[in-house]
Amino acid sequence: MVKKAVILFSGGLDSATVLYLAQREGYRCRPIVFDYGQRHRREIISARRIARAADVPCEVLKVPFPRKSSSLTDPTARIPLGNAGKKTRAIPSTYVPARNIVFLSLAVSFAESIGAEAVFIGANAVDFSDYPDCRPMFYTAFRRTIVVGTKSGTEGRSVKILAPLLYKTKAEIVKLGFALGVPYRLTWSCYQGGRRPCGRCDSCAFRAKGFREAGRADPLVVAAAMNGRRGRG
Amino acid sequence: MVKKAVILFSGGLDSATVLYLAQREGYRCRPIVFDYGQRHRREIISARRIARAADVPCEVLKVPFPRKSSSLTDPTARIPLGNAGKKTRAIPSTYVPARNIVFLSLAVSFAESIGAEAVFIGANAVDFSDYPDCRPMFYTAFRRTIVVGTKSGTEGRSVKILAPLLYKTKAEIVKLGFALGVPYRLTWSCYQGGRRPCGRCDSCAFRAKGFREAGRADPLVVAAAMNGRRGRG
Repeated sequence: MVKKAVILFSGGLDSATVLYLAQREGYRCRPIVFDYGQRHRREIISARRIARAADVPCEVLKVPFPRKSSSLTDPTARIPLGNAGKKTRAIPSTYVPARNIVFLSLAVSFAESIGAEAVFIGANAVDFSDYPDCRPMFYTAFRRTIVVGTKSGTEGRSVKILAPLLYKTKAEIVKLGFALGVPYRLTWSCYQGGRRPCGRCDSCAFRAKGFREAGRADPLVVAAAMNGRRGRG
Repeated sequence: MVKKAVILFSGGLDSATVLYLAQREGYRCRPIVFDYGQRHRREIISARRIARAADVPCEVLKVPFPRKSSSLTDPTARIPLGNAGKKTRAIPSTYVPARNIVFLSLAVSFAESIGAEAVFIGANAVDFSDYPDCRPMFYTAFRRTIVVGTKSGTEGRSVKILAPLLYKTKAEIVKLGFALGVPYRLTWSCYQGGRRPCGRCDSCAFRAKGFREAGRADPLVVAAAMNGRRGRG
């Protein structure tokens, strides 16, 4: 019997690592990507490329988030820069209301309907932007909701919500990904969604920290630099 | 300060009653209706009419549910008939995987982004089809998820999830609705989505039971009968 898993997939470093991890654990993977009006929509292109590299189908689902609710979906807002890793800070404006709750709910629905036993999410609560829906206590509560609120849950075979990167540092994730052969060159993390990573938003900063502390070069940054040199030459 | 509420709104008897109840309680209401590929899509037309009658804007959001996951979304499947109220029965094929979890999550996202303090849902755990996401224990779990998984929740002002009909019989709901002036003639409950209510699906059966036990005629059925007589005459 093949075991199936739905992967919450964004085209970023974490979810790409999770996809390759789930594959190694023997799951037949069904990544789903959400088009929710994010300004860095180029992550969807990255997601498709990585799925192709991993030889899995990739589903893109449109989800109606209110545009004005976050600097990540409002093109007139500014993405906060230079904040990653500061000790005392509030939840940043890139917070999208209830995003992971919506994504996980849709993933569970999809999982139940295709008979998948697990949903994987690349959430991380170590090197992260303090989003409440990335914290372990949220996952505990959400799992309980699924157990009591779904058919499979009431039948004792609840869809498992797996967040294998939750307690890892970004460096540990990067090392794991290299060991799994994740094509990091194809991933996209920058919130700004420009032609190249900005290097200053939270997402770029945590990514850079991960590669630095893992003692590896970021293949995406290397490729961008190469292209830049070629462009000038 | 105006208090705002998002209403999970289907155009059916329960959610129309909840809309009018929330209005009476002084909320400025923002009903949202989901277009999720349900075969009874005419409930969306009903929803718009009721919203107009209640003088509130009505948002229709498309949500990507897998079609094959339920007899409610798969036009080639059969809607089960004649089962309502049976003592021992399984969750029927009209169950849509994680539907209320998805709907509530999106409603909470919408509520957070417009600064609404509550989400109302017309869920009922007395005269209902045994859907797991209509049971009180599900709401307890979901509330906890919102408290720990959202920005407003972590700031101590969590969006309230209100299910005022949860413990009422259908007859009590009908009586409440008449007292509130709900235009039941405009509502739609039948799962089959034909020109007239089929009278045999779970949803029609529970509705009929409610009006019967409340000692009232169902204005929708009366109107359909009048039209039929006129058509034949």
